[in-house]
Amino acid sequence: MTRKDVLVLEDLLGTNKQIAAEIRRELGSRGILGVNLLSSPGSGKTTLLEGLADRLKSRHRIAVIEGDIETERDADRIRAKGVPAWQITTGGACHLEAKMVGPVLARVPADIDILFIENVGNLVCPAAFDLGESLRCVLLSAPEGDDKPAKYPQAFLTADVLILTKSDLIPYLTFDPGKAAGEALLINPRLKVFRVSALRGEGMDELASFFVNALRERRAGRA
Amino acid sequence: MTRKDVLVLEDLLGTNKQIAAEIRRELGSRGILGVNLLSSPGSGKTTLLEGLADRLKSRHRIAVIEGDIETERDADRIRAKGVPAWQITTGGACHLEAKMVGPVLARVPADIDILFIENVGNLVCPAAFDLGESLRCVLLSAPEGDDKPAKYPQAFLTADVLILTKSDLIPYLTFDPGKAAGEALLINPRLKVFRVSALRGEGMDELASFFVNALRERRAGRA
Repeated sequence: MTRKDVLVLEDLLGTNKQIAAEIRRELGSRGILGVNLLSSPGSGKTTLLEGLADRLKSRHRIAVIEGDIETERDADRIRAKGVPAWQITTGGACHLEAKMVGPVLARVPADIDILFIENVGNLVCPAAFDLGESLRCVLLSAPEGDDKPAKYPQAFLTADVLILTKSDLIPYLTFDPGKAAGEALLINPRLKVFRVSALRGEGMDELASFFVNALRERRAGRA
Repeated sequence: MTRKDVLVLEDLLGTNKQIAAEIRRELGSRGILGVNLLSSPGSGKTTLLEGLADRLKSRHRIAVIEGDIETERDADRIRAKGVPAWQITTGGACHLEAKMVGPVLARVPADIDILFIENVGNLVCPAAFDLGESLRCVLLSAPEGDDKPAKYPQAFLTADVLILTKSDLIPYLTFDPGKAAGEALLINPRLKVFRVSALRGEGMDELASFFVNALRERRAGRA
């Protein structure tokens, strides 16, 4: 990187941080828990959100912002669950930035409890961009392999929650969930770890309860 | 993106293109087939290279440049196969650039036939950076889902070869290899498609033969 590149990057991240702080204040004042989901493509973010929608929507108002480079597919899947969803297509950009989320926030109804933001599928770049969330979750699917935390540390370092997904495939893989979690906890010991199969339901009730508790704690802290 | 960001990016890509052209000339003059492997983290790039090493190394001299954000793990796995490997750790950067590959090239022995370059696990950013390769291969693993080409088009648009990996897992998934290939071919009709399981061996001989033929054609074209 040249000196000029570094200055442009610092400028970009500085601006992002300011806008993220504004989003965090707005979500806080509206009592909304903001959750940013990060992972590689195909780790199961949308399927996880479908499973969480089934478990949360009867007692809580949830909404989803979908980030993708192209297509409205993920938002359509969420809407099919009866959950409001807005698609941001980045048109080439490899991550969401706070300035893309801000304008969508104005369209999110006032009475939402939890706003999930599904980032672009990319285990690297989204980690550098705060979106004003209260909780950052990184997903690692069993087929990706238990060696990924050490190879892609930034996402695991900046997350609050690690969700090991597609646990139903573990019998057909050499994936060791203990090793994956152990490597991630070496990078970031405060990670809360869940292991789920959104397809079969394993661990999904616990994960849904975790978000409900986080919402309660957040609102209690605000009171 | 601001006007300043665009100028910096154009500058970066322009410089990359120049260095990539130099690498391409050097590989060409040395009769080396350069192959750039792109995919999400955990799509099986290193396992594919291990399987190709087993099939190619008795009759051809192959070498590998490994790109990772952190760790020497992938290079160690390749070296364990008796194949020379050099690790580039990008220390945060989400893709390889030609300027990172150039200095390593000086260390690649003169009599190498095929030089594989395993990019950083990222289906987005590496697609923008020519590394001077003759063949670009994009891997898509069955667990990632057959909807990925349309969502991450750039990698599929710029590749010469699509390798559908982890076919042994298809019985446990809803993955439709025909749909995945069809979506990719809509984006880029000149893609050559392979379906493999590096673990079980399915399709690996055909893929190895493809690279040997590509090497022959390249050298014949040069003669």
